[in-house]
Amino acid sequence: MQHLFGSADSLITVDLDAIAANWRFLDSLSAPSTVTAAVVKANAYGLGADIIAPHLATAGCEVFFVMSLDEGVQLRQNLRLAGFERLPVFCLSGCHAGQEDDFLANELSPVINDLGQVARLGMLSKRHNVSIPAALHIDTGMTRLGLSPDETEWLIEHMQDGVNALEGINLVYLMSHLSNAEIAASPSNTSQLAAFATLRPCFASARASLANSGGVLLDDAFHFDMTRPGIALYGVHPAGAPTSTERGKLLKSVVNWDARILQLRVANTGDAVGYGGTHVLTRDSLVAIIGVGYADGYPRCLGNIATAQIDNYVVPVIGRISMDSMALDVTDVPEEKIRAATSARLLGQHYDTSMMARDAGTIGYEILTGIGKRPARRFLGQG
Amino acid sequence: MQHLFGSADSLITVDLDAIAANWRFLDSLSAPSTVTAAVVKANAYGLGADIIAPHLATAGCEVFFVMSLDEGVQLRQNLRLAGFERLPVFCLSGCHAGQEDDFLANELSPVINDLGQVARLGMLSKRHNVSIPAALHIDTGMTRLGLSPDETEWLIEHMQDGVNALEGINLVYLMSHLSNAEIAASPSNTSQLAAFATLRPCFASARASLANSGGVLLDDAFHFDMTRPGIALYGVHPAGAPTSTERGKLLKSVVNWDARILQLRVANTGDAVGYGGTHVLTRDSLVAIIGVGYADGYPRCLGNIATAQIDNYVVPVIGRISMDSMALDVTDVPEEKIRAATSARLLGQHYDTSMMARDAGTIGYEILTGIGKRPARRFLGQG
Repeated sequence: MQHLFGSADSLITVDLDAIAANWRFLDSLSAPSTVTAAVVKANAYGLGADIIAPHLATAGCEVFFVMSLDEGVQLRQNLRLAGFERLPVFCLSGCHAGQEDDFLANELSPVINDLGQVARLGMLSKRHNVSIPAALHIDTGMTRLGLSPDETEWLIEHMQDGVNALEGINLVYLMSHLSNAEIAASPSNTSQLAAFATLRPCFASARASLANSGGVLLDDAFHFDMTRPGIALYGVHPAGAPTSTERGKLLKSVVNWDARILQLRVANTGDAVGYGGTHVLTRDSLVAIIGVGYADGYPRCLGNIATAQIDNYVVPVIGRISMDSMALDVTDVPEEKIRAATSARLLGQHYDTSMMARDAGTIGYEILTGIGKRPARRFLGQG
Repeated sequence: MQHLFGSADSLITVDLDAIAANWRFLDSLSAPSTVTAAVVKANAYGLGADIIAPHLATAGCEVFFVMSLDEGVQLRQNLRLAGFERLPVFCLSGCHAGQEDDFLANELSPVINDLGQVARLGMLSKRHNVSIPAALHIDTGMTRLGLSPDETEWLIEHMQDGVNALEGINLVYLMSHLSNAEIAASPSNTSQLAAFATLRPCFASARASLANSGGVLLDDAFHFDMTRPGIALYGVHPAGAPTSTERGKLLKSVVNWDARILQLRVANTGDAVGYGGTHVLTRDSLVAIIGVGYADGYPRCLGNIATAQIDNYVVPVIGRISMDSMALDVTDVPEEKIRAATSARLLGQHYDTSMMARDAGTIGYEILTGIGKRPARRFLGQG
């Protein structure tokens, strides 16, 4: 394993075929007429949008979502390089003042979040005499991005007049976003669904999209014309535990994280390990120092909590996580196994993204997007 | 401010002159004969080693520390590009099997952490008939990297024989690392100092280095021939609060983080904000949605806890932090100020790295190294 690290001290392995399989699985949950987009914002949840998006396009994905113009420009370039010329790329952050020309030049589609953006796109359309493809995001109860109920009402009124506020905008999608989709029984789901269904006929020419990963796994009623899974593509159930629903069980694991054993050391009863000496050895021990720390995105709060795997042995993380390293108690790994080992697995089947997230008091999304740029990357299934 | 964001949704501003001033200040605390190195591992604690290291070299810094070979190769290239040809670069992770040629080719100096590395470097020296400059790291009570007491004892014994185990190695520095330096009264400091002072004469030809940032701020006795400050260069006191010591007060603040206001929205009493609806508005409110989320490295746990600044008004973060955005309650900002605002400050004087770390239950080091690659970067004082 260590020979794959090159000059880095750890390696993230991303299984592209597992991502494609997850996309196909999520796609299979909705009707054939429902498009399954892929959310690849935040560098495909930290895993590498440059490689993952073209792989998903090859698997059949035809619509992509990113957050910022930055991400959109980069994705457009990478899709083109991979031979995918015209697939729609939507920027969830919307088109901000000064960004108009870059949106046009890169054929990016803004997600319109407020009336100011409606007006700006309308003027842009007039200036260039083009019809700008866009999605309209209406808020149905999340109070985050999207037109507020008042703004939505204003817009609907001003589409029924002689003057159409959406003139010049090719409204491809009407969308909203669920705030509690990972909790099947949440009343928010039904109230958001009802609000969306009520407003949908007012934008009859646009296709409709409501479901994030949680929505895809919930129920057909949430699927409409397009689903927008993100986290589930990367093998993490939005509710955390992968087995929390029958459907969630079928998601394939995507990520492993292996780290170089920098040093094996004999230490004695009473020795204090790491900053602050928070772990004091209660026996003579063998300690492995590993080349990953919180600067790599390994949560510092997992010191004295998490586990790693060496060979087939699960071993505890001891002491505080340092910036660039951490310590494992490998005393219980048989001598010949530990002497032969060159790396330890930090994230994998023995301790997956959801387990790490639970122990860190967060969600898998933050674990994945938090992985730093220092670990090397390897993509299984590439080309 | 927003015009500086380009196609990104937020901007990290790094004050290079403040970093240089911090380096000069730390340098002034030790005797003129003591070299002050700079620790620029983890991409200069997340802030940009490519720019910061050459700036520090210009300020007079002559020795650099990184972690991995990867970081060393990149730093060597950047120092060369900036016209600094031969400054020593030490890799704290050591030289691992298979990395020998890259160390030589890039004139990198390994920090030797165990006897295996001693042997490997000795053989490398013989093969190429060169004397390899290196530092020897002896552990004095941290049980992390460095030779254990037993290994150190073995090495000392085998330097007094006819055969010298360090043959072929140009031992430039003898170093150790403090585990509790930020706590002035910690007994670890005195015990580590005593252990280091005892072993130092056994490696009389090497210069001695013990102090990290905490050690520099502690006391002259810890300075020896070279200090190795890291976090303090970046304006963060190792103990957290910048005012925790007289000396710490003199560190200059280095980082601001500003984010685009994606959307201003009117919301009503009773509206639930963000995922899970964890903040319910108790009055009709104006909410600003900001283009930074946990995928940018803003800790997710700061939802409903942290503050931001718009104009001169400090406003609360409300609801959960999303992957790419967060919400601020800006109801109390005067109408004309909020309508004119295009950005919010997330990290700065009103809420600095140490305050953010305290609220997130971590240390400033993790905040800085956790900042993602999506925010744009601007360097004040560059060339």
